Amino acid sequence: MASNFFGEIFRITTFGESHGPGMGVVIDGCPAGLAITAKDINEQLAWRQPGKNPYTSPRKEADEAEILSGVFEGKTTGAPLTILIRNKDADSSQYTPIQNLYRPGHANFTYLEKYGIFDHRGGGRASARETVARVAAGAVAKKFIALYDIECTAFVSEIGGIAIADQDLTHLKNIRAKTYASPIFCPDEVVSEKIMQRIQEIKEENDSLGGILTCIAQVPVGLGEPVYRKLEALLAFAMLSIPASKGFEIGSGFGAARMKGSEHNDAFTSDEKGNVYTTTNFSGGTLGGISTGSSLIFKVAFKPTSSIKKPQETVNLQGERATFQLPETARHDPCVAIRAVPIIEAMTALVLADALLLNRSSKING
Amino acid sequence: MASNFFGEIFRITTFGESHGPGMGVVIDGCPAGLAITAKDINEQLAWRQPGKNPYTSPRKEADEAEILSGVFEGKTTGAPLTILIRNKDADSSQYTPIQNLYRPGHANFTYLEKYGIFDHRGGGRASARETVARVAAGAVAKKFIALYDIECTAFVSEIGGIAIADQDLTHLKNIRAKTYASPIFCPDEVVSEKIMQRIQEIKEENDSLGGILTCIAQVPVGLGEPVYRKLEALLAFAMLSIPASKGFEIGSGFGAARMKGSEHNDAFTSDEKGNVYTTTNFSGGTLGGISTGSSLIFKVAFKPTSSIKKPQETVNLQGERATFQLPETARHDPCVAIRAVPIIEAMTALVLADALLLNRSSKING
Amino acid sequence: MASNFFGEIFRITTFGESHGPGMGVVIDGCPAGLAITAKDINEQLAWRQPGKNPYTSPRKEADEAEILSGVFEGKTTGAPLTILIRNKDADSSQYTPIQNLYRPGHANFTYLEKYGIFDHRGGGRASARETVARVAAGAVAKKFIALYDIECTAFVSEIGGIAIADQDLTHLKNIRAKTYASPIFCPDEVVSEKIMQRIQEIKEENDSLGGILTCIAQVPVGLGEPVYRKLEALLAFAMLSIPASKGFEIGSGFGAARMKGSEHNDAFTSDEKGNVYTTTNFSGGTLGGISTGSSLIFKVAFKPTSSIKKPQETVNLQGERATFQLPETARHDPCVAIRAVPIIEAMTALVLADALLLNRSSKING
Amino acid sequence: MASNFFGEIFRITTFGESHGPGMGVVIDGCPAGLAITAKDINEQLAWRQPGKNPYTSPRKEADEAEILSGVFEGKTTGAPLTILIRNKDADSSQYTPIQNLYRPGHANFTYLEKYGIFDHRGGGRASARETVARVAAGAVAKKFIALYDIECTAFVSEIGGIAIADQDLTHLKNIRAKTYASPIFCPDEVVSEKIMQRIQEIKEENDSLGGILTCIAQVPVGLGEPVYRKLEALLAFAMLSIPASKGFEIGSGFGAARMKGSEHNDAFTSDEKGNVYTTTNFSGGTLGGISTGSSLIFKVAFKPTSSIKKPQETVNLQGERATFQLPETARHDPCVAIRAVPIIEAMTALVLADALLLNRSSKING
Repeated sequence: MASNFFGEIFRITTFGESHGPGMGVVIDGCPAGLAITAKDINEQLAWRQPGKNPYTSPRKEADEAEILSGVFEGKTTGAPLTILIRNKDADSSQYTPIQNLYRPGHANFTYLEKYGIFDHRGGGRASARETVARVAAGAVAKKFIALYDIECTAFVSEIGGIAIADQDLTHLKNIRAKTYASPIFCPDEVVSEKIMQRIQEIKEENDSLGGILTCIAQVPVGLGEPVYRKLEALLAFAMLSIPASKGFEIGSGFGAARMKGSEHNDAFTSDEKGNVYTTTNFSGGTLGGISTGSSLIFKVAFKPTSSIKKPQETVNLQGERATFQLPETARHDPCVAIRAVPIIEAMTALVLADALLLNRSSKING
Repeated sequence: MASNFFGEIFRITTFGESHGPGMGVVIDGCPAGLAITAKDINEQLAWRQPGKNPYTSPRKEADEAEILSGVFEGKTTGAPLTILIRNKDADSSQYTPIQNLYRPGHANFTYLEKYGIFDHRGGGRASARETVARVAAGAVAKKFIALYDIECTAFVSEIGGIAIADQDLTHLKNIRAKTYASPIFCPDEVVSEKIMQRIQEIKEENDSLGGILTCIAQVPVGLGEPVYRKLEALLAFAMLSIPASKGFEIGSGFGAARMKGSEHNDAFTSDEKGNVYTTTNFSGGTLGGISTGSSLIFKVAFKPTSSIKKPQETVNLQGERATFQLPETARHDPCVAIRAVPIIEAMTALVLADALLLNRSSKING
Repeated sequence: MASNFFGEIFRITTFGESHGPGMGVVIDGCPAGLAITAKDINEQLAWRQPGKNPYTSPRKEADEAEILSGVFEGKTTGAPLTILIRNKDADSSQYTPIQNLYRPGHANFTYLEKYGIFDHRGGGRASARETVARVAAGAVAKKFIALYDIECTAFVSEIGGIAIADQDLTHLKNIRAKTYASPIFCPDEVVSEKIMQRIQEIKEENDSLGGILTCIAQVPVGLGEPVYRKLEALLAFAMLSIPASKGFEIGSGFGAARMKGSEHNDAFTSDEKGNVYTTTNFSGGTLGGISTGSSLIFKVAFKPTSSIKKPQETVNLQGERATFQLPETARHDPCVAIRAVPIIEAMTALVLADALLLNRSSKING
Repeated sequence: MASNFFGEIFRITTFGESHGPGMGVVIDGCPAGLAITAKDINEQLAWRQPGKNPYTSPRKEADEAEILSGVFEGKTTGAPLTILIRNKDADSSQYTPIQNLYRPGHANFTYLEKYGIFDHRGGGRASARETVARVAAGAVAKKFIALYDIECTAFVSEIGGIAIADQDLTHLKNIRAKTYASPIFCPDEVVSEKIMQRIQEIKEENDSLGGILTCIAQVPVGLGEPVYRKLEALLAFAMLSIPASKGFEIGSGFGAARMKGSEHNDAFTSDEKGNVYTTTNFSGGTLGGISTGSSLIFKVAFKPTSSIKKPQETVNLQGERATFQLPETARHDPCVAIRAVPIIEAMTALVLADALLLNRSSKING
């Protein structure tokens, strides 16, 4: 079943395997007239790129976008915009010794059951490399939503149990600048330092850590399409489609279960110009599935990287007990959550670009 | 934008407002040959129906399904199956005094901004009454997935901070029977008692409580369509579309952020027949977005009921400060999470029915 | 597979069987603020209704629309708008004697092969009665497109080989008034008379006639979404979904095969205000799949009514040869093409309503 | 609005402009396990390729497919299958002198109105070159449907008024071999000769011709999804999306308007094994929108090529009258209908591949 597309009006279809010729995306439905260049896309790809610090995988992918269609004289034409990123630096040979084993925490078991075939080189379509196409598409979506003064920032708020306290989160200023100044995308300097130290330890243990990311976006009122395409539902759908994600919460989230209605209801008030807003934002920026105009704020949980160098129990494709051990030369991230920062931003931008266009049909007069 | 439909092959389109003529659903794509009666549907509606105990709203809806199409001689024909539930017991007059105020925690502000019009009677389309159509559709989906020996059970695992401990969850037996024996759908008798007491207190305070629901389902291997229609992504999408939901997590969920890879990776093993399975289930039943054959287990967080009888600060439609207070006679639930049990089961059944049909196209030989 | 819906943004889902409780439609995605009443819908249903003259079936359906949702104080709210038309005057007993036979020109053979079950009462879902829901939905679409000064008129241009000549078509004035003044929806009085006479003859022969309908609409430039949702492709899709239709052509249509490029290319010119238009309209109102602003003009062919009272050879469900003969009391139309007039208008209005909304996303500035 | 995709389960998304870097397609939803190579695709591309005879455009495109994703060890994996065909031999400079003029019969007027921007090089996205991606995708679809013994053959049945008579059509044998033996894809040798002569004449006149293609396919019973995705509706949708197509008819088509029901109804009969079939096939292979198991037969009309070397009246982008004349060196086809043969086959194969998969969900037991 066709399932590699996302979005209704602003729709992406992504393709590519980790160790195939390349990764790519067709953006079908991007409105005409948007200025976009390969440089815009490469800038976003660079944030996703690992190997810039010891806290992420040393794989040097050197991703470079080629725009194959949809742009003429620097602007989108309304035709599908296609971006291709050739795979480089892909050494498939190291996967040969382990291709006959079910990998704990990985998808080769389920892919083989479902499809009867699995491209084992580097995880194939199930590889986190798949997300490079999301980030490329997100670069275009970001440029579109910026026309509406919408910006979204994702950042690391917790790794290995080391977290920015919720009350500190609320008071953070210049989050974007601070986030992108941190090697691990964590805007709180003290927490950032502690996490980096913890990551060093876990690397030495040949193990990995999970984490939580927060995303904040300023959006206008009116986005989201009840009753099934509520803004938070679209975001949850987008976030849980990211490899290794395990949870999503908006605003108060799971903490809402410990609050009373009188605490949780955000009171409405108005300024002298008559603009209506809420004094608190436990809702996280939506009511009834539609954005309120307050900050959109949500969190996404990631499991610890499944690829670790510790030996693990498993079985082979014949069902016989075996030990799985990654080759010494295999490269991977001690914490995938870190690399998810630009991916979450990309998926958020894609949801919002589509939501903006969907909202154009809400009223008879457009 | 069309947004009141859910599912691809097994697709529902729901309609209706709280105080309009009725609520309903068209199920388009239900395979032919499924035995279904109005009685099957009414049984499910009864579980959603409040007023059976002091812990839910006393509104007596007496929901009754009429099958308008799609069934011939007791079986589905492949034509769209339509179910209509007439609204009864709807007194709109009590909403007149408050129709000029923005309701804290409610959707009239965002609906008015988005659509320029709001059916204020009982919340209109934004009312929780909307979910009756989901439960009706879910009744059909449940009968379909039962043909594949799939059953799902949702239950209350936490309300007002009173929770079943995770380690106890794992050891629960006969969950379905215990859940449906509890007036608040909580399978742990001790926890159930404590919660009921807490609800009595909160009612006397004219306030409300939030809660968390857990859902467990036995599903075959192979369901879910990477990379965007991963099974957990579809579930998250479905769950966050339910009114008042604030979060979703699968398996280890947000707890994964505090685990190591070596702890979190579920080891593969096999039984004497060569069946492969995992010794733990931190994944919650999916790998790479495809079901593993282990139990599907996930949680959904609900905010405290927004409708409370305590006075709350707000503004009116003209932007002037005002106090919002529900009429004394207004009926509502002290904790919406309780009533979400059959709704979560319905949405889960709808996701799984569609996933089963989507999976029929995975291989060339069907 | 879900397949009873039509349209992307302005989407209808129809349901109902000929001899079931009723027929209906959910319109999901109608923009908020549109004035609509049951009377608006009933007026359209009346045009479809047979039994007003000897040239259509005498069945007295007396269709009446009930609006079940989506309208508040006379206007659409953005919520799904549902219309239910109860079936009356449905006598299923006459179908009992023929339920065991494959009906020539009918769908019971293919439905039984595909679904394994067939609601034989009056043709079930395959009955032309299904189109009443299209006309109801079309009534809403017509009111929406009227806001953009779009009107469409369908009429009979040929029946039983008696046709309005193409050169006369071009010079017709007041087509709508003339069409609706004719008992058989044919705007040319002379042709209308001849056709009516031919229909009387064919009735006496217990036989039926085929026909061709023409539809003309004034639409603004810019509608249609290349490369697959070209305006003519959407229209062809809509028209071939109507029961008994066998062909579609736009502008020059099949006649284009006998023309040269120098004849067929519509020359561009401009008026004193600089408005660009074409001096001829062989294209039928689209170029590259997008409306040019010239009249949209297309034709649809219909086969002769399959239900005739002449005895016909067939086999029964067991594969044994048999003779099929309609009961003497059975009611049906000597020419279904006549009744297709309001159906074609409805489907055209639905295509155009959706096209208008789709076009809102063509440019970055809406 | 996303509109460059076609199909539901077996879904293609195509991209590329005539004079951009390349054309391509992502096939999302092709079942796993299908053997496919670049050679399979290139064979199909060769049929579409012009320049092999004087009757089509001399442009030497030398199309070569690169498979970018979705195939592993020669078989599809269930992941999106992407094919890229680089553009070669594209000289944009000749379009510079005419870029300021509206081209009669072309789409630059409507694209500019709709999108505010037009890639004028060779027609951009509106170029017939777009169809190369359809043929590439069709090559994959053909291999899939061949597993079900489905084959489809399109051929020229009329050009410039020179036609194969309908009664001769019925008796044609070895249509595929004869079609592919003709330089203009016309299986009747005499007609083929006459048409080639007529094309030579029209070339000398600097003019062009329209034509009609017929397509015949052997399909099993049960394909097509009423009531909107009837098999003929899907085919009409597909065919009218092809550049320059003006009409579609199935079976008796427009000729049905001159037939009686007693002539048109195909009588059912059965063979000694009890297989039910019809003695005639005026329906063209469907009843109620579902395939009957008889041959699927339909026709598509094409307008004369819009690009001709005769001078034509037009206006420029400023609305001033002007004369349009193609540069002497411009290459184009005297009759686009000829090159549509592999395109029609490709679109038919895509419709049938999807229909086969859609039909897997018709019954509860798959």
